[in-house]
Formats: sequence, structure tokens, C-alpha cells
Amino acid sequence: MTTSVMSPAAVTTQWVYRFGNGTAEGRSDMRNLLGGKGANLAEMSLLGLPVPAGFTITTEVCTYFYANAKTYPPSLAEDVAAAVAFIEQSVDARFGDPANPLLVSVRSGARASMPGMMDTVLNLGLNDETAEGLAALSGDARFAYDSYRRFIQMYSNVVLDLDHHHFEEILNRVKDDHGLTMDTDLADVHWRQVVAEYKDLVRHELGKEFPQDPQEQLWGAIGAVFRSWMNQRAIVYRRLHGIPESWGTAVNIQAMVFGNMGGDCATGVAFTRNPSTGANEFYGEYLINAQGEDVVAGIRTPQQITIAGREAQSSKLPSMEEAMPEVFAELNRVRGILERHYRDVQDIEFTVQKTKLYMLQTRSGKRTAQAALKIAVDMVAEGLITEAEAISRIDPRSLDQILHPRLDPKAPRTVLAKGLPASPGAASGTVVFSADEAEDRAAKGDAVILVRIETSPEDIHGMNAAKGILTTRGGMTSHAAVVARGMGRPCVSGAGDIRIDYAAGTLSCRGTVVKGGDRITIDGSTGEVFLGEVPTIQPELSGDFAVLMGWADGLRRLTVRTNAETPLDARTARQFGAEGIGLCRTEHMFFEASRIVAVREMIMASDEKGRRAALAKILPMQRGDFAELFRIMRGLPVTIRLLDPPLHEFLPHSEAEMAEVAAAAGVDIGTVRSRAVTLAEANPMLGHRGCRLGISYPEIYEMQARAIFEAVVEVQKEFGETVVPEVMIPLVATRRELEILRALVVQVAKEVETASGVALEYLVGTMIELPRAALRAAQIAEQADFFSFGTNDLTQTTLGLSRDDAGSFLPAYVAKGIFEEDPFVSIDQDGVGELVKLAAERGRATRPGLKLGICGEHGGDPASIQFCESVGLDYVSCSPFRVPIARLAAAQAALAKGFNKENL
Amino acid sequence: MTTSVMSPAAVTTQWVYRFGNGTAEGRSDMRNLLGGKGANLAEMSLLGLPVPAGFTITTEVCTYFYANAKTYPPSLAEDVAAAVAFIEQSVDARFGDPANPLLVSVRSGARASMPGMMDTVLNLGLNDETAEGLAALSGDARFAYDSYRRFIQMYSNVVLDLDHHHFEEILNRVKDDHGLTMDTDLADVHWRQVVAEYKDLVRHELGKEFPQDPQEQLWGAIGAVFRSWMNQRAIVYRRLHGIPESWGTAVNIQAMVFGNMGGDCATGVAFTRNPSTGANEFYGEYLINAQGEDVVAGIRTPQQITIAGREAQSSKLPSMEEAMPEVFAELNRVRGILERHYRDVQDIEFTVQKTKLYMLQTRSGKRTAQAALKIAVDMVAEGLITEAEAISRIDPRSLDQILHPRLDPKAPRTVLAKGLPASPGAASGTVVFSADEAEDRAAKGDAVILVRIETSPEDIHGMNAAKGILTTRGGMTSHAAVVARGMGRPCVSGAGDIRIDYAAGTLSCRGTVVKGGDRITIDGSTGEVFLGEVPTIQPELSGDFAVLMGWADGLRRLTVRTNAETPLDARTARQFGAEGIGLCRTEHMFFEASRIVAVREMIMASDEKGRRAALAKILPMQRGDFAELFRIMRGLPVTIRLLDPPLHEFLPHSEAEMAEVAAAAGVDIGTVRSRAVTLAEANPMLGHRGCRLGISYPEIYEMQARAIFEAVVEVQKEFGETVVPEVMIPLVATRRELEILRALVVQVAKEVETASGVALEYLVGTMIELPRAALRAAQIAEQADFFSFGTNDLTQTTLGLSRDDAGSFLPAYVAKGIFEEDPFVSIDQDGVGELVKLAAERGRATRPGLKLGICGEHGGDPASIQFCESVGLDYVSCSPFRVPIARLAAAQAALAKGFNKENL
Repeated sequence: MTTSVMSPAAVTTQWVYRFGNGTAEGRSDMRNLLGGKGANLAEMSLLGLPVPAGFTITTEVCTYFYANAKTYPPSLAEDVAAAVAFIEQSVDARFGDPANPLLVSVRSGARASMPGMMDTVLNLGLNDETAEGLAALSGDARFAYDSYRRFIQMYSNVVLDLDHHHFEEILNRVKDDHGLTMDTDLADVHWRQVVAEYKDLVRHELGKEFPQDPQEQLWGAIGAVFRSWMNQRAIVYRRLHGIPESWGTAVNIQAMVFGNMGGDCATGVAFTRNPSTGANEFYGEYLINAQGEDVVAGIRTPQQITIAGREAQSSKLPSMEEAMPEVFAELNRVRGILERHYRDVQDIEFTVQKTKLYMLQTRSGKRTAQAALKIAVDMVAEGLITEAEAISRIDPRSLDQILHPRLDPKAPRTVLAKGLPASPGAASGTVVFSADEAEDRAAKGDAVILVRIETSPEDIHGMNAAKGILTTRGGMTSHAAVVARGMGRPCVSGAGDIRIDYAAGTLSCRGTVVKGGDRITIDGSTGEVFLGEVPTIQPELSGDFAVLMGWADGLRRLTVRTNAETPLDARTARQFGAEGIGLCRTEHMFFEASRIVAVREMIMASDEKGRRAALAKILPMQRGDFAELFRIMRGLPVTIRLLDPPLHEFLPHSEAEMAEVAAAAGVDIGTVRSRAVTLAEANPMLGHRGCRLGISYPEIYEMQARAIFEAVVEVQKEFGETVVPEVMIPLVATRRELEILRALVVQVAKEVETASGVALEYLVGTMIELPRAALRAAQIAEQADFFSFGTNDLTQTTLGLSRDDAGSFLPAYVAKGIFEEDPFVSIDQDGVGELVKLAAERGRATRPGLKLGICGEHGGDPASIQFCESVGLDYVSCSPFRVPIARLAAAQAALAKGFNKENL
Repeated sequence: MTTSVMSPAAVTTQWVYRFGNGTAEGRSDMRNLLGGKGANLAEMSLLGLPVPAGFTITTEVCTYFYANAKTYPPSLAEDVAAAVAFIEQSVDARFGDPANPLLVSVRSGARASMPGMMDTVLNLGLNDETAEGLAALSGDARFAYDSYRRFIQMYSNVVLDLDHHHFEEILNRVKDDHGLTMDTDLADVHWRQVVAEYKDLVRHELGKEFPQDPQEQLWGAIGAVFRSWMNQRAIVYRRLHGIPESWGTAVNIQAMVFGNMGGDCATGVAFTRNPSTGANEFYGEYLINAQGEDVVAGIRTPQQITIAGREAQSSKLPSMEEAMPEVFAELNRVRGILERHYRDVQDIEFTVQKTKLYMLQTRSGKRTAQAALKIAVDMVAEGLITEAEAISRIDPRSLDQILHPRLDPKAPRTVLAKGLPASPGAASGTVVFSADEAEDRAAKGDAVILVRIETSPEDIHGMNAAKGILTTRGGMTSHAAVVARGMGRPCVSGAGDIRIDYAAGTLSCRGTVVKGGDRITIDGSTGEVFLGEVPTIQPELSGDFAVLMGWADGLRRLTVRTNAETPLDARTARQFGAEGIGLCRTEHMFFEASRIVAVREMIMASDEKGRRAALAKILPMQRGDFAELFRIMRGLPVTIRLLDPPLHEFLPHSEAEMAEVAAAAGVDIGTVRSRAVTLAEANPMLGHRGCRLGISYPEIYEMQARAIFEAVVEVQKEFGETVVPEVMIPLVATRRELEILRALVVQVAKEVETASGVALEYLVGTMIELPRAALRAAQIAEQADFFSFGTNDLTQTTLGLSRDDAGSFLPAYVAKGIFEEDPFVSIDQDGVGELVKLAAERGRATRPGLKLGICGEHGGDPASIQFCESVGLDYVSCSPFRVPIARLAAAQAALAKGFNKENL
């Protein structure tokens, strides 16, 4: 469809596409060439809908413009002239003809909606003569001069680059001079005065007259649209939204119609269904005797288009259904045509000029997550779309809005303050003011809300331990917000009315003081903060949600597991449809208050015998943990990762705790301190952790393997069915490491088999989380029953980027376009992705049935899931609240792969 | 050459190879099949040298043995019997014949020399009857029974697995009973008693008689050799030396000859040239009337073989040249034949039995580095070998021994203590007891010796700052030793006689006390520690060394540069033949005492303006640094890396220094402390460093680029010739980073060109030190004139292994065979190497002329250099003292690639 503008063939390119009068040269599937607005105007015209005649200058002209020193293709002037003549003929008016002037609108229109570019110039074609003509023709001089002054103001602003406020000053002064306050108070004489002063202003500022020649006006506006493609706002917007510069913008030029020519005129916007609830009801607002911008400006109260809408709003103003029943009926008919044609909810703009309806725009309607679900499911029931299309219509990330606990709407509440809705969900808990305290109290079983002025990477452990996070500074992309969303914790950020006094251990808001230890509730979906505990209710997982998820499950190929180690998380994930555990981080079990002492005793032991004694105390607890997970995940696979973090992470920092450890281990506190110093690492991420611990201290992995297999024996007996655990060795870099540790696990399994008389089935595999492991996957697969891609650490090592430390520069990196997205949120397909692909290929070359999954944060990110599908992984594993997102994204990925649909 | 032992074709395999009587079935190039010893015995026999007849059982029998449940090939018994018959016929004696008994030796012999395996059983074939026969035949009953008891003792030990000390107890008791002290004091009756008691011991310990059947003895010894291939010592040795288990060992069975049958018998060992100096003189020792083991045992003082040798040693014992002139002449003739044939120095073993010379072994002689050089150069002059062969004969790593400063041999000295020679070279300096003090004093220009009980990763900065390191604990592979060798610092480790008192700030050794601040000297090549300052002399870089290096330079393709930033290092490197600087780490210049204050002021600045003010102070100093390097490296390329480490590395830790920084920056000390906390990172290696600093604080890179280009202008004017600096951007992960920073460098260059009126030539490139950069090399090359592989960081990220933290487990990893070698010493070719290869290919696909080099520590490691040659890099860059090693290794690599010679 795109022809090179530099080739000789370019002379035959069609630069201009006309529409109107029930015909069009374009179509809705030509949005790359005509922009979204132009393509849909053509389509509506083809559908026979009343579209004012016009034409679209293609995006290829924009490309030509920038490739050729801001000049136009030679034939463009001629093509535009012909197209203008087409409009003149269609509406029976002539450009610049004082007796019967044609006025047009000029609008930009790129492939994707792009605020930041020039938007619109209305009433183009007006000058001193045609304004008089319009006054005569309409019999309404006030209308004509109001239109003229609007044109001068818009044109001067967007084409001539004169500041808006100059014009507003003049208007305000004229009002003051005449003792008037509202625009509607001004009569034609006042508008004439405004027009004259506007023209003086232009002359004074630019040293030349405001252009009177409609042709000059037209080409001025066209040039302004193309130039606006490269203005700073547009460049920034494109970078932020990943829109290529090469796309270019189109320009739409269309005959003006007027909603402000009297009481039989009107203008409005509407959605073909309710965009908040998704209900199949016509939903919109209109104003009688007004131009489009008045609806948005908020000067007059818009009226509902339907009687039902008016009643729902208890409005006294008549609905369009009542005030203009015939036109409304026509609009309602158009509504049906558009929905059936586009097979989706449409967001439309219309104008009524002297009882005649004109359609000015249609596009896919934005909607809430809840509405999107309902609309998709309803449309399948109505036979409008297929199940696959319904699935493709839902942005998986939007499910986040409806999956978290929310406040019980019937519960009483006392609002303390309001901040930003930084991470969805509601939570109650005890106020704590430091990450350490959050961790300590959480370890003792308290639900806590971490309250900070702002958070930093040092607070991560506390954020993880807290049920929710409240900050008084920082926006939607602050550290607190970003991290909380990643963790699935509710967060209210930037609650600026709250004052925190760390020293006193209090927070206060307009006289109300809350002390550390008091309870509060936050709603991360609204930004509200409440005193005390407000009951929450769990999300609704039936209804439309369940129906859509059922369809998704039927279509996807990827299995969806969860990352979970607590019974609570495991149960939540099962409710959300998890098909097993992909990552159980055993070290989280080590931190529990009841066992951390034994863990520290193990670390303090000076020899293997001492470590074994401490590990013997941990064994029954771990066995109990695993048995419980096997019960919850009955019949589903459970992958258990052996100990991963460096040992120093388990040592305490406070003197009191060190004394406790010393007492438990039977050593003095100096020994504890010195052990902590010995174990400290410059780069713990790259240190003595993962399987390196298993190599150095085989007794630790031995205990864990024993706990797993003994739990299997226990649950197998209970259920009378086989439990097949998947034992995962972390941080492997070489085949030999896995060989040594696999042999250890197999040995323990044999011992448990002998002792229990129960035959065991199990898998032993590894995480692929180091670049070397990915490169050596062929060799490592010789020892592995499965690979699980640990893309968090793989991202850290491949990019040389510490997740804990990147906060200081990562936002700037994303803003500068160095990274398209935070690589910890969405997998870096070019770098990390190549390693995943290569490891999958090499691993399967060695062992064709090798089970492949992903268990990093990326397992819950739709783009990353699409990538996982494309490289043929078997499953993704993600945090419990992301399981439905993953199920839906996996279905979309399967559709994208299978059907290669452009809209996916 | 290797035939599968499992295939039907195996029945035709030749399992046994005979030699002797001027013939042989094997050759010296069959060492894979016959082992080193067997192949050379065959070769000597083919050369017509007097080799006692014998045969070799091949390594394939060993392989068969382990593949077939420790059984032999069916035909082996027959083959061995025929081969024994061959010996019997050759020496006219018969196995087990009391009238004329054949005695044999049985020796293991693998492809590579392998201590840890069974070595030798002598006199096999003796029993109660043949011992009597031997006594009668030789007319020397003492000799016969001494031989018999030796045989029982050796056989019982290595074949029957009885402990050595049992036999020694018996011998000692017999001596005591008879009031004798020396073995030589025992007469035949005494030896008969010993033999009887030895046999009683065997019967008592094993419950059966010592085997009397020579066939049983023979097969017992053969089985013991093959079993010894898999004993624990052999397995460990193989793992440590990278010898594959699959090689197997051969067994050599050979007729005994006796050097202990009287005054016309002798035995000895010799080198065809002096192995210490390389001088072309016959060098060796012998003993009259002795068996081989007596020479080694040290009971009798060995005599020199030549008159010159006797005179040099001022020995009173007659030389062989004097005592046995005819036999000596024959031996000297053999010496010439062997050297001309093998074209290398030979280490030979011989026995003289009744004036007849027998050759028992020849092999390549071990020699000192100095000798190796001289021998190689001499042999080229003698026309024995080619220059290429001379180059291939020198282990590049051995040059380390001769390249470092050494103590002036004429200087007086007082030895304080002796430890291990952990890292070569000698150094004098002020004693300091902590890494911080070492750094502080070094920054003030002091030469310091860092003295620690042992070192740990936290001491690295101090080790780097010191001229030498002394520890009282730890061996040749201790942290101190490994790190010092890597840094090229002399190190004496494990000087256990020295006591360190950190609190008092003293070290003491047998009453001598040295205080911190006093001066000492260490010699890392001998392990000696001296009081005060002993003058050192620079290494001799002329003579044989220069000749060989000249040949190497003529043969190599890779350029050799150096990593250097100080004028001293740069000059040293040029003396060693460096062809430019491959890595100038600008941050090392920041640490200098005179400028660290300005650097810290820059870090403390709260805004860009403040930073620029501080940077303006640093600019002239950096400019001066660069100008000096350009002068030293006149005509050669200089690659300058822009700032790399995270800023917190420059902040002080002590209160006094913090106060100093606060004063300089005009802030209070609390601000300094809090800035330090803000900048602290969990994983600095993966943090805000490298080009990320350049993105966040462009003014830093701008200053550095300005300093480089202004220095170029200065030196260009001085020399009247073009200086082409290579500006290197570190830690790039994406094309975009390099694009942004390249544009900044280009902009600064333009500004300097404009200001100076001088046209500049320069390259802008990047380090490839992150896996992602390697993967994205095609895109990054669009912006790079060169790639330099930063294999230190690339190893850290690819393996997820922090060099600073790996000390706690890396030695165990190497010992367990998980890594063949420390991956920070020799490049991990399978993992890191694949990334280097891939980046080189992808980079050059985009930009065919892309210059490629390596600047990690691996640039000075011969195996890594061979790898660099194989993937076609343009240059390697290494620390100054490694430059000659790299030159030689590069020549060897070029030879290996070009000629594919097996001996390289």
C-alpha cells in the first residue's frame, strides 16, 4: 500500500482521497494511508450515512514533505484544487464566493490518535467579504461574525503561532467595555469589533494582514498540520507511545456544517453503548444551537440524548429524543448501522444543521474494564462477534482493575485524605513508618500499611511485607507506585494533605492525628485513605468475567501457573484459575518468625555437624509447608525452588536480634557480628547464592529435598494418588553444577523411598537465569527435566542492571527512549528474549520433551506472554493476581500465532 | 588411531607393542596409544640405542578394561605370553627359570606424566627359587636377596596394598638385632632373614602366601597399573590438570638390567643441556653399584657425570667421565643422537650393567624459564629447530619469572623471614597494616607494602595501591596470591614465622620487631622478606629474550596493547613492546590526592551548574594526563575509556575526610553523609555506572572528551603529527546509549576544532561487556568505530559471578571441576567466548572494518589470546608486565591457526 515517494513510480501516486454524497475513494481499512479519522469518514460515506463532503490528503504526502525539504508532491496543488471543486459541487457553495461561501474544517488525523499535534481549524474560508455573505445568507450577522472571530482566533493560534491569550484579552476587554459577561451576551456589533481588533492584533504582531485569500488560508492550514507532526509535543508523545516517526499524519478537509444556526440546529457526542457499565443503551449528550467545541467547553450544561438518560440523571433539560424526535430517530438508526458495521461500540460526533443530521466522526469507543467485559460477552451473544474476537477486544492489563479486593460499598467509612490511585485494590492494616518495622511486624503476623513520605529501593522489603503502601509525595510513576503495582499491593501515592512526623511516629491530616500502630484503610483504586478498618470484599469472578475466561481457556495453548509459597497465595491463585505452582520460593518460608532463629543458628554453625543440627529443626516445618501446598494444588504440578538468596540476607541487623541469635547459637554477639561481616558481599546478586550454596553446603539442599519428598509421601497417602513434585535448582551456570545437585536430590529420594516404602515420581530441573546457562542449554538439558526461565535475574545479568539500583536512572532511560519499556516489566525481547529463544532451541535439541516455562515477573505481562507463545514455552507462572491476565493474554497470543489477525 | 573396543573389528586390534634389539613396533608419535614412556622406549630402540627388550600394553586395553567390568580383551593373555617369550629370547633368560631367571620391571605410562598412579615394580620374576638362581648366576647372594626383598616390598605395597611401614619396621628391627645402621651394612644372611619375615608378614596380613608364580606376579602388576588409573589420587590429579579419563594408561614391561651388580655397574640421570642455565653442556649425576632408586633416595651423594660438572661443584668424587671413560663416551654419543633426533633437551635415565650401557627412559627435559629461552635460541642457531618451533617451545606464562624487577644480587640484605613465592618480582616499601591505609599513603605518593594475616575481597583497593603484599597465612592459591598475580604485584604469602599485631601496629619475627611506617623488601620469586630497602634491578630485556620476542613479533597477527593510565605504567609497557594503549581507565586519575577533592565536590553538587564548576577544576589535570600519555605513546593508538565506576566509589568513608569534602563543597557533614547514603547501591556492579553516568550527567563525559581533544591539539602541535585518540564509552547495553553519547563526543570535538582551528581525527567506540551488548552488536556497531571486549565484566555478568565475592567458593568450584580454570584468569570459552564470537561476527556484519580488541585481564592469558586469534580480533590489551607474554602467546596462536601444528 505504501509506495516509495522517491521512486519514478511516485508520479502515479494518489495523494488525495475524496468522500461524501454516499461515495468515497477510501475505506476504513486504509487507516495507514488516510489516518483513523479520514478512513472512517470515507467508510461512513460508503455506508450511505450523511457525511459532509470532503477529502483526505494522505500520510504519504507527509512522508514526502519531510523527505523533500518540506515541499509537496508537484501534482498536489492540482489534486487539492480538484477536490475542493468536488466539495463545492457537493454542497453547492464556492470557496471565497461572498454570495455563497464554502467554509471548511481542516483537521489532522494520524494512524493512531495523537494529542500533541495540531487538532482543528474550523470555519476556514471566512474573510471580510464571505463573512458579510454568510451573514446575509443565514440572516444571522451575529452567527457570521462569531464564526469569523472563532476562525481568526483558531487560525492565528495553530497556523500563525500567535499566543491564545492575546485574543482572550481583547475579548475580555470588549466585554468589559460594554458591561457584558457571557459570550452569548455579545451581539453582532460586538463581534464585528472583536474581529476588527483581532485583525489589528495579527497585523501588529506579524507585520502583515490576516490572510483574506481562502486558498492561502487553506494551504496555511495544510502546512501547519504537516509541520505539527514534528513539533516537540508530538515527538515526545510518539516516543512515549512507541509510534514510529515514519507513519506521518493525514489532513482532512471537509465542508463545514453548523449546529449554531438556530433552534433547529444542534451538536453532540454519543456512545453506541454505555462506556461505564457496558449496558446496551444509547448514551450521549448534545446542545441545541451550538458548535462542537461548546459541548466540551462546559459553559452550558449538556443535555442527554435519550429519555432514559435524562431520567437517570434527574435532568430537567429536554432530551434529544423529546426535543428533536425525528432527528433522534435518524441518529438511533445510524447508531445501529455503525455498530453492526464496525461490530464494536462506537464513539460518534454529530451536528444537526436546520434539522438535518450530519456525521462528523466515528471511532471505537473507550470503555472501562468492566464495560469492556460486558460488551464483549454481550456482542458474542448478539452474534455480532466471535468468541475469539471478544477475547481480542479486552486489554489483559485492564483486568487489574477488577481483580483486587475492594471496599464493601455498604460499609461505613471516614475519609481521612485523598491521594492518587497508584495501584489498585483496597487494604486495611496497622500504620508503620519504616520498612524494617513493616517487615518485623509482618513477620509476626500483623497486617501493616507502610506509610512513607516517599519510598526508595531500600524500602522494597518493607513494601513486600506490607498489605498496602501510602506515600505523601510522588505521582503515578513514583517508586512507590511502580513497585506496588509490580507487587500487586494497593498503593495510594502523593496524598499531599497528610503530614508525616517520623520522629513522633505520627501522621496527621487537617487536625486528625493517627499514631503508628493505629489502623487505617487505603483504596488504591480511588486514592482514598480512611480511618480505622473498612471491610473489603473479594472481587467478583463469576458472570461476564467467568464466561470470557472460559473462552480464553479454551483457546490458549500456554498453561498458566502461579508464583506462590503461602497457602493464602496458593488458594487465591487457584481461585483465579492457576494450573499449578511454577515457583515456590522456599526462602520466603525461612523468614517466618517461628523459624528464622533456627535458620540463623544454621548460618552461625561453624561446621557441617552444627548446620545439620539446625537444619533438623527446620525440616519438619518445611515438610509441613510443602504438604499444605500439595494439598491445595491437588492434581496440579508444584515447582519448588531450593534455597536461593545468599545467607547474609537471613542475618539480623539490630543489636537486640543479634543478641537473640547469639544466645540461640550459643556464641557471643561478637561472633554473630563477625560472621555477618564475613558473609557480607559487594554484589550479593552475583555472589554466593543459588546452587552455589548447594555446592558449598549440600546439607541445606539435602534437608529441603527430604522435606519435599517426605511431604509427597504424606500427601500421597492421604489422597491415594500420586504427587509429582518438580525440584528446581537455581542459578545454574554449568552442566556440572546441575549434575552434582541432581545426584544429591536423587540420592535423598532413594533414601525416602527406602524409609517409607513408597515409590516416588519427580522431576529435577533448573532455572535458566544466567546468560551462560542460556548459551549452554544444550549441555545443561542433559541433566534437566525442565527449564524455568528466571527472567528477573536473566534481565539483571543480561543488561548488567540491578533491579534494586536502577530506580535512579531507569525512568530517565525509558523517557529518553533508550528502553521502550521498563525491562523488568516487559521482557527485553531483543536481548533477554534472544537468550530465552536460544536456550529453548538448544535445550530441546538435546531433550525434545524438555518442559519449558517462565517464572519471572514477566510471566504476568501480556507482551512477554505473547513472546513466550512465539518461542513455544509450555507455561508461564506469575503472581496470583496476574493469573487471569495471563490466561487472557495467553489466549490472545495463541490467536495471534494461529490466525495472525492484524487486530491482535 | 583409536578403535572402538566394543565393535566387532576390535578382535583385530593390536594390544601389545614390542621393542628392543634395535627394532620396535611403536614410535615416538604413538604416545596416545603407548603412553609417553612406551613410545620413547620404542623410538630409542628404533634409533639403535641400547634399550633392554620389553613391550607395552596399550592404553586401549585400559579403556577396554573399564568398559568391560575390569576384564581384558580375550587375546591379551596370548599376546602377553608371546611378548614375554620375545624378551626371553632377546636377553637369553627365562621367566621363572631358576637356572637363568628373567626379571622384568613393570611401569605405568600415560599419555601425559601422571604422579598419583602406580609407578614401578622392579625385579619382578623373583621367588624363592629364582632368587637362589640369581645368587648363583651373579655370584653375589647379597645382591640377589637385596633384590628379592626390594621386590617383595614394592609388590606388596603397590599390588597387594599393604602399608609400607610394616616392611620398614621389620627392616629396622633386623638392623637393631644385629647392631647395624646402614642398608649397606647388611650381608646376605641378613637379607635372607628380612625376606623370610616379609613373607611371614604377607601371609599374616592377607591369609595367603606371597605369590611365587612369576606369571601370577606379572598379571598382578598389570592389573594394579590399570586399577591405579582410577584411584583417588589419579582422579584428583587429572581433574586439576584437565586430563580426560578416557585417555587411559599403558603398561610397560621390560627386562631388568642391574646397576648394582658390582663396581663395573652404575645408574644415573642426566640432561642433555643444563636445565637451570640452558648452557649446552652435558649435565647429570650417577652412582656406581646402585639401582635407580638409590640416586633419588639421597642416602649416597651422587657423583657428577662430567669433569666440568665435578669441578663446578668442587666435588672430590670422581666423575663418570673419569671413572668409566668408555661408557661415558658411549653415553655422550647417545646424548648427541637423542638431541638431534628429538630436537630438544632430553631428560634421560640409564643403567650400566657390567660396563654395558642401557637406556631406560628419555623425555623432554623440564627447564627454567631462563634456560628455555637460551635453549630455544641456541637450537635455532645450531640449525636444530626453526624460529617457529623455538617460539612454540616457550610457555608464555613462564616469562613472568624473568620480567619482574629482581633484587640486585650484589646488594647486601638481612633476611627477616621466608614465606611462599606467591607472585614474582621484588619490591620495597613502607609497612602498612590495612587496605585503607595502603590506599591513603599510596595516594600521597608513598611506596607501601601491605602486610596482612590474610587478605579478603575488601582489601582489593589496598592491594592495588601497594607495591607488594605480604601475608602470614595462606598458600599459593590464597586470595592474596591469586589477586597479586593478577595485578602483577609481588607477593609473599604464608610467612608463618611472622606475627602481626594489628592493635600495636607491628610485625615481629623471632624477636625482631618492625613497626608500621618502617621499610621492608619482599622477593615474591623466592618468598623472602628483608629488613629495610634492598635495591632492585630491572629485568634484562635484551639477549635471548629480545631475539625470541623479535621472532614472535614477526610471526604474530594480533597487535598487543597495554592497559595503562600512569606515565610509569605506560613507559614500562612500551619497554615491554606494547603497541599502544588499549585501556586507559580515567577514573584511576580521579583518585589522585590532588584531584579527589574536586571530584567529590562534583559529586556533592546539587545541580548541573555546581557539577560544571567542579569539573572545570578537573579539566586541566585530565588534559595534562592525556597529553603525557599521547607523548609516551607517540605514533601509537591510545584508547581512553570515559568514567566508569559508580560515583559513590569516590566518596570517603572516614569522618575526617567527610569533613574535608563538606568544607570543600560548602555543605555540612550531614549532607555529605546523606549523599553517600543516597548513592549507595545494593549491587554497584550492576548499578549507576558506565555510560549510564554519561546519560545522567552528560557534563562529566563532556569534560573528559574536552580534555582528550584539547590534549590532542597540544601534542599535535608539539610533534607536528596527527594524534588519533580512541574514545571508549563503557557499559553500553543498547544502540541508543552509544548514539546519544557519540553525538556528545562529536559535538565537543567540533567545539575544540572551532576554538583551536585544528582539524581532529578520532574514533568513538564502546566496550562490549554486557551480554546484551554482545547480542545486539549488529545494531551497536552502527554507532561504533571499534569494540573492545571488557571480558572482566562480561564474565561477571555472563556467569552471574562477582569477582569480589567469588573468593569464598571459586577455589572449590575449580577443585570440583565445575570450572576447569578460574574464569577470571582464562576466558570461559564456552560461555563468555560464544558471546565474544557472536559479537565479533554481528558487529563486522554491520561494519566490515570494525576494529576489535580485548581489554580484560584475559588479554594477558595465553589460552585466552589463542581464543582471540581464533575469532579474529585485531588486538589484545593487557597489564604492562604481561605484554611480552601476550606477544609470545599471540605468535603461538598465529602459528597454531596457520600451521595447525599438534605440538602447539
